[in-house]
Amino acid sequence: MYYKPGLHILSEFKSVQRHLLNSSSFFRKHLEWLILEKKLQKVGEVYHDFENGGFTAVVCLTESHISIHTWPEFELATFDVFLSNYQHENDEKARDIYKGILEFYQGTELQKNEIKR
Amino acid sequence: MYYKPGLHILSEFKSVQRHLLNSSSFFRKHLEWLILEKKLQKVGEVYHDFENGGFTAVVCLTESHISIHTWPEFELATFDVFLSNYQHENDEKARDIYKGILEFYQGTELQKNEIKR
Repeated sequence: MYYKPGLHILSEFKSVQRHLLNSSSFFRKHLEWLILEKKLQKVGEVYHDFENGGFTAVVCLTESHISIHTWPEFELATFDVFLSNYQHENDEKARDIYKGILEFYQGTELQKNEIKR
Repeated sequence: MYYKPGLHILSEFKSVQRHLLNSSSFFRKHLEWLILEKKLQKVGEVYHDFENGGFTAVVCLTESHISIHTWPEFELATFDVFLSNYQHENDEKARDIYKGILEFYQGTELQKNEIKR
């Protein structure tokens, strides 16, 4: 057993689906489904909806974490998925999850960084 | 009011302070203190200690999030601090928090990325 770094994808995207940026409920259901489909293991989560719209969410996984912060007033979100390769090679899963989220929001990617860490 | 992106610092560091990598309790106290000192607003958190040592933690802030994942068996941690500039310019706070964590672990930086987003 040796340490294999994981892949962290950081994205900023635009979306005109303001209702999906405004409240965490739709995102939450979709992410739950993606986590189940990709057989990732959740160990905790925080969902926080702001009074004036927009939300912040982080899901902790045994494989690291997924996070989103939304600014509906700017039709904008920042999204992260970081999956370490401790027991499995998870780089493709990280890309699939990002793709699944971008599709869900019908998002237009403004910036994307992939960091091996 | 217009959207100003924030700064996300991603770091991998080594530390021989295995007890600080092994259990979340010391990190938690130190981070609480940093959050208080820097006047950041916590909205939720997840701390998860693994049975075989090591932990994963994410603290959600109104300003975005802070996360850490540790691998004591490799004397290694990945640390993130992402502070958006929605109401204040927070870039220096992000750098100060990272500096505070690295000092706490007497860590040796292996890789650091700073992403404006």
